[in-house]
Amino acid sequence: MPPPSLRRRKTALLALALERTAPATLQQQICEQLREIILAGRLPPGSRLPSSRALAAELGCSRNTVVTAFDQLLSEGYLEGQAGSGTYVCRVLPEELLGVAPPAEAATACSEAPGGTAGPRLAGRAAAIVDLSRRDRDRHRLAQGSAGGTAPAAGETLRAFLSGPETAEFPFDVWGRLYARIWRRPADRLLQLDSAAGMQSLREAIAGYLRSYRGLQCDWHQVIVTTGAQAAIGLATQMLLEPGDAVWIEEPGYVGLRGPLLAAGAELVPVPLDGEGISVAAGTRLAAKARAAIVTPSHHYPLGTTLTLARRLELLEWAREADAWILEDDYDSEYRYAGRPLASLQGLAAGRGEAGRVIYVGTFSKVLFPSIRIGYLVVPEALVEPLTAGQAALGAMPSALVQPVLASFIEDGSFATHVRRMRRLYAARQAALVAAVKTHLDDLLTVTPDDAGLHVMAGLKAPLAERLGDQGAARVAAAAGIGVVPLANYFYGPATRQGLMLGYAGVPEDEIDGGARRLGEVLRTAMRS
Amino acid sequence: MPPPSLRRRKTALLALALERTAPATLQQQICEQLREIILAGRLPPGSRLPSSRALAAELGCSRNTVVTAFDQLLSEGYLEGQAGSGTYVCRVLPEELLGVAPPAEAATACSEAPGGTAGPRLAGRAAAIVDLSRRDRDRHRLAQGSAGGTAPAAGETLRAFLSGPETAEFPFDVWGRLYARIWRRPADRLLQLDSAAGMQSLREAIAGYLRSYRGLQCDWHQVIVTTGAQAAIGLATQMLLEPGDAVWIEEPGYVGLRGPLLAAGAELVPVPLDGEGISVAAGTRLAAKARAAIVTPSHHYPLGTTLTLARRLELLEWAREADAWILEDDYDSEYRYAGRPLASLQGLAAGRGEAGRVIYVGTFSKVLFPSIRIGYLVVPEALVEPLTAGQAALGAMPSALVQPVLASFIEDGSFATHVRRMRRLYAARQAALVAAVKTHLDDLLTVTPDDAGLHVMAGLKAPLAERLGDQGAARVAAAAGIGVVPLANYFYGPATRQGLMLGYAGVPEDEIDGGARRLGEVLRTAMRS
Repeated sequence: MPPPSLRRRKTALLALALERTAPATLQQQICEQLREIILAGRLPPGSRLPSSRALAAELGCSRNTVVTAFDQLLSEGYLEGQAGSGTYVCRVLPEELLGVAPPAEAATACSEAPGGTAGPRLAGRAAAIVDLSRRDRDRHRLAQGSAGGTAPAAGETLRAFLSGPETAEFPFDVWGRLYARIWRRPADRLLQLDSAAGMQSLREAIAGYLRSYRGLQCDWHQVIVTTGAQAAIGLATQMLLEPGDAVWIEEPGYVGLRGPLLAAGAELVPVPLDGEGISVAAGTRLAAKARAAIVTPSHHYPLGTTLTLARRLELLEWAREADAWILEDDYDSEYRYAGRPLASLQGLAAGRGEAGRVIYVGTFSKVLFPSIRIGYLVVPEALVEPLTAGQAALGAMPSALVQPVLASFIEDGSFATHVRRMRRLYAARQAALVAAVKTHLDDLLTVTPDDAGLHVMAGLKAPLAERLGDQGAARVAAAAGIGVVPLANYFYGPATRQGLMLGYAGVPEDEIDGGARRLGEVLRTAMRS
Repeated sequence: MPPPSLRRRKTALLALALERTAPATLQQQICEQLREIILAGRLPPGSRLPSSRALAAELGCSRNTVVTAFDQLLSEGYLEGQAGSGTYVCRVLPEELLGVAPPAEAATACSEAPGGTAGPRLAGRAAAIVDLSRRDRDRHRLAQGSAGGTAPAAGETLRAFLSGPETAEFPFDVWGRLYARIWRRPADRLLQLDSAAGMQSLREAIAGYLRSYRGLQCDWHQVIVTTGAQAAIGLATQMLLEPGDAVWIEEPGYVGLRGPLLAAGAELVPVPLDGEGISVAAGTRLAAKARAAIVTPSHHYPLGTTLTLARRLELLEWAREADAWILEDDYDSEYRYAGRPLASLQGLAAGRGEAGRVIYVGTFSKVLFPSIRIGYLVVPEALVEPLTAGQAALGAMPSALVQPVLASFIEDGSFATHVRRMRRLYAARQAALVAAVKTHLDDLLTVTPDDAGLHVMAGLKAPLAERLGDQGAARVAAAAGIGVVPLANYFYGPATRQGLMLGYAGVPEDEIDGGARRLGEVLRTAMRS
């Protein structure tokens, strides 16, 4: 019987097996397998390997194949030895490399006890972002109707009243034809990125659309294409804000902008809203010298308020005095059902010679579908170079598999057609929702039609507000498979008002009435108990 | 003759014209046009508008249409007035809004004299990034053969010796079929993002590939899909580094990582290389307490050195002592023509129980095509949550129009087939380049075959090094339409060696010989003058 070390070696080498039909050459297979055996500690340092002749015979390959494999491993430092005196597993490999744990077990240990292999500490901003993300996840779970103590009965999860667009109606056939036309035999220039700011055809299409429909004053080269509105805000804040700079955000407001602001190290200053939109007076009291304000002037998110002209002028005036940037987030301007939106703040500023301080942010997530991940910035002339450089530096450019297709989709009118169809559909769904709330929830909620958007913000009548509150109501709804988001979630600080966000855009009309009825039932039951 | 103000009003209102076939309603058109006229200052504050009846008659629409349009503008604050006393352009609009400049002129003024409308100052890091970008652009221009005093004669720009992959050989037909199969009638789950870390199918495909071919020890949930290697490095550094943290970078090295590091506020510490790869001893002398090291162990960029096993262990040992992160950038591991790469540093660290500090970075830009913009991180267990949260916070997720298609492309074997084909093609092109340099450039350059990669780094023989240097040679080449990159460009500090990067992967074999001959001619001519 051979000594233990030799037996160990034999056992280890038994694992060597060549696969003649594998894509790797025999020599590569020998190298790879020997490397694994050595790293797993199954051949300890100093172990002598069989002669190349013996191993070749055992494996049924040519001796030359084994010699070449050994040479490779010698050059890599796994093996040592010289002609005539045999080949050994390298002795200079530290014992701990070979002894600790075979790879597979190490990996398991790692996922079972992450503490054991925890690395260095994270950056301070990471903790803030993780915290934000955990709150977002809970919020999202709530909105998806899967939070709360009681899981909804199987098959009962409704689409009512999730927010977000109706993705089922997107013309994927049209998109697919445009895609195929462009990418079946793509032009050479599509295979490289011509600019970190995005493909010219798309930037031209976006600029043309914004000039016509949103009153923007911009040239195509001022458009920077990003992977969405959040990324757009992230790029702008990264390049414009010093760590510690104060930034006005609307209170309540869009949660998605907090991540980019935390990453940029900004200090968030929640500024309350009144019926005219963000209160410039309050903002001035809180942080007169803020470096930026991020606002949703066309249609406040999530309340729906339109920033009045007087207030817009006041905001611009403040920005001029404070020498601050204004980020205009125009996230859902496409969906307006009544009246016309005020022209963009960007256009207003340009008319006053203040084009240099307004950065316009838009997105296609709500008009097309969320996972397309395309948004954009329209930046003042002076920011074109630095923000394009910033995008290049961060490598954040969206794929060319999307950009030219979207450009064609806009240029050939498909975009406008889709928006018009959706506008009609959503207007009908909003009307159905308002009617359903009147019918089934009149004792609990108040809604007023909203001229724009994809959701309505319902107010809580006194009994519901007092007994459950918006957060309690959302939990009760979630347990019944109905997703409604409490207004509380949109406050950065303590919530000063209650509300329930009822999405309708993505909810088929026939589910709206049933959803409202069911919501009424579960809320009333919860209020009685 | 009417008084001037009235004439002005009449002229202004003459511009109103309704288009009955336009998508906008008549009322919307009236609103929009009046708004523009007011903002352009063509109707000063306090101007009285014609009665709704008169305007309706003039425009040939119903009076009700005009009344509703006026109501909208009254509610927006453009107009004021009350029943019976007429309608006026709002007096509270500050004079400067209306007087300054009509929109179109303001926009022109802006692009002609950006100084005049310059906004607030940028963040400090923006200046560093702009500077980096300007140097990159010059470098890029040089590499594209379009810099230098003399423009190349028309039609003479060669593909020799641009770096980058051969995009013409990508199987767009296969890709297109996979795309159509997935996106003709997409599953609902594709229209939302299931995780900021990327789609599960893609993360599984990447993890499987890395385990088999690169010896990584990872589970799919450790994979985070990004918009490329730079974005991957950006996400990691953003979440792991505090502003001011020192980071080792290879000197010379990959230029693309400087942007993300500058954005994160890191202090870059260039660490010299020797024949075994990055010098851990030198790094320790320069910044023993650096928080991270970013390395290309498989195949140094751009020199091609493989980090030896001994040096890998030394690096891991340093990282353990300094409690530092290691970013392993494995940017071109797919293209190895001889021998087999050392298994990944990530796998080595995992075998030593140090999986917690190595972050692996990969990209598909070189294997597929650059504009696809897909890369990834493989992160230790403890970083899965914070880096996923970071990606969500920054909104940097790549489009779902790419992710599942790439997953299928890997899963069905098309990826492996493509890599094998390209490997043969590139090996042949490298051999052709090495032969062409021997034939046409033997008096000027030395090249040795490289076991891997998409380019070779040629050394300069004494006469060329002394008379032109690598930067001079690159300029001369560029003027003749030949793109070669001087090694100097890859140094962060002063260059300590000369070299010319000759890309071959994207250069058809028949252009390689001609390119080398022409390069020899122009260099010799320049050296004589």
